[in-house]
Amino acid sequence: MDVYGKFVGLAEWKVLIDDWLEKSEAGQQPDAFYNLKPDAREISYDAIFVGGGAAGRFGCAALTARGGRGLVIDKWPFLGGSCPHEACVPHHIFSEAARELDYAREFGGEYWYPEWDSTKASILEIRDMFMNNRNTGHSIMNFQSKEQLGMEFILGSWAKVIDNHTVEVDGVHYRAKNLVLCVGARPTPPDIPGIEKYGVFDWASILDDLDYEPNRCVVIGGGKTALEYGSFIQATGCHTTYLSRSPILGTKGLQHVDDDIREFVVRMLKHRGSTIHEGAEPLAILSEGSLGEDKVTGVKFRDAQGNEHVVDTDFVFLGTGERALSHQFDVLGLELNERGQIVVDKQMRTSVPNVYAAGDLIDGPMEMFKARKAGVCAARVIMGETDYEFDYSDFPDFLHTTYEVAWTGLSEREAREQYENVMVIQMPPKGIAPEDCGLPATDGSMFFAFTRPGLNGIIKSVIDADTRKIVGMHSVGFGNKNSFQYLDVLIKQPGGFTIDQMGEVNELFLNDGFPQLHRLRAGQKQLRDL
Amino acid sequence: MDVYGKFVGLAEWKVLIDDWLEKSEAGQQPDAFYNLKPDAREISYDAIFVGGGAAGRFGCAALTARGGRGLVIDKWPFLGGSCPHEACVPHHIFSEAARELDYAREFGGEYWYPEWDSTKASILEIRDMFMNNRNTGHSIMNFQSKEQLGMEFILGSWAKVIDNHTVEVDGVHYRAKNLVLCVGARPTPPDIPGIEKYGVFDWASILDDLDYEPNRCVVIGGGKTALEYGSFIQATGCHTTYLSRSPILGTKGLQHVDDDIREFVVRMLKHRGSTIHEGAEPLAILSEGSLGEDKVTGVKFRDAQGNEHVVDTDFVFLGTGERALSHQFDVLGLELNERGQIVVDKQMRTSVPNVYAAGDLIDGPMEMFKARKAGVCAARVIMGETDYEFDYSDFPDFLHTTYEVAWTGLSEREAREQYENVMVIQMPPKGIAPEDCGLPATDGSMFFAFTRPGLNGIIKSVIDADTRKIVGMHSVGFGNKNSFQYLDVLIKQPGGFTIDQMGEVNELFLNDGFPQLHRLRAGQKQLRDL
Repeated sequence: MDVYGKFVGLAEWKVLIDDWLEKSEAGQQPDAFYNLKPDAREISYDAIFVGGGAAGRFGCAALTARGGRGLVIDKWPFLGGSCPHEACVPHHIFSEAARELDYAREFGGEYWYPEWDSTKASILEIRDMFMNNRNTGHSIMNFQSKEQLGMEFILGSWAKVIDNHTVEVDGVHYRAKNLVLCVGARPTPPDIPGIEKYGVFDWASILDDLDYEPNRCVVIGGGKTALEYGSFIQATGCHTTYLSRSPILGTKGLQHVDDDIREFVVRMLKHRGSTIHEGAEPLAILSEGSLGEDKVTGVKFRDAQGNEHVVDTDFVFLGTGERALSHQFDVLGLELNERGQIVVDKQMRTSVPNVYAAGDLIDGPMEMFKARKAGVCAARVIMGETDYEFDYSDFPDFLHTTYEVAWTGLSEREAREQYENVMVIQMPPKGIAPEDCGLPATDGSMFFAFTRPGLNGIIKSVIDADTRKIVGMHSVGFGNKNSFQYLDVLIKQPGGFTIDQMGEVNELFLNDGFPQLHRLRAGQKQLRDL
Repeated sequence: MDVYGKFVGLAEWKVLIDDWLEKSEAGQQPDAFYNLKPDAREISYDAIFVGGGAAGRFGCAALTARGGRGLVIDKWPFLGGSCPHEACVPHHIFSEAARELDYAREFGGEYWYPEWDSTKASILEIRDMFMNNRNTGHSIMNFQSKEQLGMEFILGSWAKVIDNHTVEVDGVHYRAKNLVLCVGARPTPPDIPGIEKYGVFDWASILDDLDYEPNRCVVIGGGKTALEYGSFIQATGCHTTYLSRSPILGTKGLQHVDDDIREFVVRMLKHRGSTIHEGAEPLAILSEGSLGEDKVTGVKFRDAQGNEHVVDTDFVFLGTGERALSHQFDVLGLELNERGQIVVDKQMRTSVPNVYAAGDLIDGPMEMFKARKAGVCAARVIMGETDYEFDYSDFPDFLHTTYEVAWTGLSEREAREQYENVMVIQMPPKGIAPEDCGLPATDGSMFFAFTRPGLNGIIKSVIDADTRKIVGMHSVGFGNKNSFQYLDVLIKQPGGFTIDQMGEVNELFLNDGFPQLHRLRAGQKQLRDL
C-alpha cells in the first residue's frame, strides 16, 4: 500500500496496523506500507536502516533531519520495534499495576481500600489491557515519522541484505551508500532440561501465549527483567520465588549498584512475600501430562550450599539473557563477538566497510538510550560528522520493583576504592532503624512514610570530600526516575556538580531530598557524613 | 527540659513531642526543650533565629556549619515549622490520596478495582492518617538538627524580641549580634460576610477543626492551594465547585503558566466532575441554625456576567491568601510593604541594622526553597560572605491536581513576546486530538494512555530557535516534579541548555519524553515545531 504523499492521521494508522496484524495472524500476507519518494528505486540512499526499532527509527530521523536520504525497513507494520510492541511498554504497564496492587494489598481494609483479595488481580486482564490497545502507540510512531519527520519507510515486509550496498524487499532491490543494521535481539532460554515445557514464559511469550492465571511462580534470574516481572507477578497475589545464580541485582550486566540500595530492594521483595534463593542453579523444569502437552509442575535447583530442592510451581518466568539477531546478516561476513553481537567501533562502524550496526545487535546495555543514540551516531557519521562518537559505557540506570530504583555514578564502595575522603549523605541516615524514620523519600511515598515507616524508600549521595564533587547518586522511591536523567548530566558535566551547587538547587518540595540534604552540609569546610 | 549533651533518638523524640503537644492541648504549659551549650546566657550569639521553620532551621544549620554560634527558638516543640505540621506535608498526603482515588474512580469495576463507591473515601480518615503520625516527621527534624547538625535550640516556648540584639524566653534574655526573623504567615480569610461560620475551613483548620464528612464543597480561589485541596476533595467523591475571581491558574502569584497547560488542567478538573466559575465574586456565606452555632448551607456569588447565584454546600474551603506574622516584631519598627510583609534586600537585611528576615515573613513565593535558602542567605551574610545574594524572583514551579503540574522558564506566549523565532516541541502535538494520542506522558500514566487516551498528560518545551536554547519547559503528568528541579538548573545555567544538549541526555525509558523528542529535532539546522 502506497501511503506516500497522502496525509494519514493517527486514527487511520491504527486501523491500518490493526488490519495488517489481524491478517498476519490469520496466516495471510498483508500488504506492506510504502512511504517512498518516486525515485526510490533509482537513487542510492545515504543509508538504509534495516530494522525500524529504536535505533533504526531514530537513526533514519537524524539522517533525514540533516538533509540525507534515508530509508528504514521493518518486518512489522509500524516503527518503534519491540519496545512498544512487547518489551519496555508492557513492562511499564505491569510495573504501574505492581505499584497500585502493592497499595491495594498493603492498605487493604484501611481507608477506602477493600480487603485485599488476591483472586481479583488477573495477570491476563492486565496483559490484555496492553494487547488490546498497543496499536495506538504504534500509530503515533508512524504518524510522527511520516508527517512530522518526513522519513521514507517500508513497513510490514522483510528486508534481505544482498551486499553492503543492496537490500531487497519483495523482490525489489534498493541501493544505499551505507547500511545500518538494527534488528535487535530476542530472549534466549537458558540451557535447562525441560525449558521448552508449557508454562515457561519470557517477556515476549507472556504476551502471546499465556492463557491461564498462574498460582505460583518461579522467576529464573536476579537482574532487571527478573525483578520487574517478578515484582508484578508477586503483586498480583501469585507467590514468587527467585532462583538467581548471582546475588539479586548483582548480575554481571548491572553496574554501580550500591550495597545499601541492594539491601533495601531485597528487604522490600521479602516484605512483599517473595522467596529468594541466591547462588541457586536451576537443574530441571519438572512437568506432568502426556508427552508434548506436559505442563510445568516445579523447578529443581541446587542451592548455594550444594543441596538440591524442588519448588512447586505452575509458571516459570525467564528473566535471563537475550541473543542478538546477527545471523541474518551472515552474507556480509561481519565480525561478531563471543556472544554473537556485531562488533562496532565508537562510530558504530562494523568490520565491513559502509556497514554500521546499532541497538541490541551490538554490545552494551540493552537500553533505549543506547539503541536510539547509536542509530543517531551512525547517521551523523554517515552525514559527515567524522569526529562524532558515542560512548555508552557510562549512563544512569534504573529498574522497577514496586518502587522506582534509579542510580547514576559510583556506588559508595566503588567511590571508596577511588577516592581517599568519601562523604555520604543518606536518608534514612546510616545507623538509624528505617522503621523509626517516617520521612518520605519523595512525595509518592507519603502513605508509607506515615503509616509504614521503613517502606518509604532510601536516597543516597556519594561525594568526594576533597573536591566536594558528587560522584554517585542512588534512590529507591517514587518519581525519581525522570530526575536521574538530568542528575546524570549534572554530575558528569565538565567540572562536575558539587555539594555546594546541589545546595543551591531550588527544590520543588516535597521532593527527593537531595537539594536540602546537600544544603545542610554544604556550609562545612571539612565535610562529614549526614 | 535540658537535652544538651544527651543523645536523644528518634523514638524518644517522638514520645517527648507527643507528650508536649498532649499537655498543651490539655491547657497545661509543658516544659520547653533546651539544647544550649553551658555558656548560652553569657555569650552573644552570632545570630538568634526567631522561628524554627524552614527558614530558621536551615539558617541556623548553615550558620552552625560555618562555625558560627546560632540559636533557634520556636513556640512548637519541634523544628520544621508549619510545613510538616499543617501545610505542605498534609497537602502531599491529600494529593497522594487524590491520585489513588482518581484511579479508584476512573477504573472502578475494571481490573482489580471494586465498583467505585464514593462513600468509602473519608476525608476525616485520611486527615487522621496524617494527624496520628505527624510527630514522627517532627522527631526526625529534631534528631537531625541536634545530633547531626549540632544546632542549639529552645523548642516549645515563645520568643519575645526585646530589641535588635535581645530575645527573651521564659524570662531569660539571650543576646545576639544579629536577629533573623522567620515566624512565617497564617491563612487570612477573605472579606466575605459569613466567613466566620462553622463549615468554612482553610488548610490549617481542616486539620484541627473538621469533624464531619462534607457532601458538597465550594472552593474559593483558583490558585495552587485551591486546586490542590479541591482536587483531593473532589477525588473523595465530594462534588466541588470552584469560585475564582481570576482564571484558574491565572492568579497573580503564579508566573509562567502556559496556556496549553492551563487548558489541560481545566479540562481534567472538569472531566473529574468539578464545576468551575471563573470571574466569580463570592458575596456571602449562607448558613442556618441558631446564632453562634449556624452552619454553612451555601455560597452566594456574582458570576462574570454580573448575575447572582447560590451554590448549595455544607463545606467551604478557602484557597485564598495568607498574612505574614510581622506584627509581633512591631517593637523593632521594621519597614513593611503594603501587604504587611517585612521589606528585605537581596541579603535578607531588613530596614533595621542587624535584623534579617526570611521565609513567609517576606515577599516572594511562599515556597520551601525560598524559605530555606533565605534563611541560609541571612546566615552566610552574617558569617561574612558579604557578596552573597539570594534572588528568588526566578524559580521552577509546581502544583498538584490529581496530576503533577511542573514548569520552569517561559510560557510559549512569553517566549513569543521575547524571541523572534520560537519553536515548540509538545506531546500530544498541536492540532492532534489528545484522545487519539495514547502515548504516556511518562510512566505513571500507562493505564490512562492505554485505556483513556486524553487523560495521559502533556509535555511541552519552548525553544529560542536562533540560539537553539530551551527557554521554557512544562508538563502535566506523573513523576515529573523532581526532574523540574534539575531541568531548572540546566536551562538557566550560564550558556543555557540547547535542544542539541537535551538530545544527548541518556533517557531512562519510559521517561518524560523530553530527551527523545528534542533528539528527533536536534538534527535540523532550521528548527521546526514537533
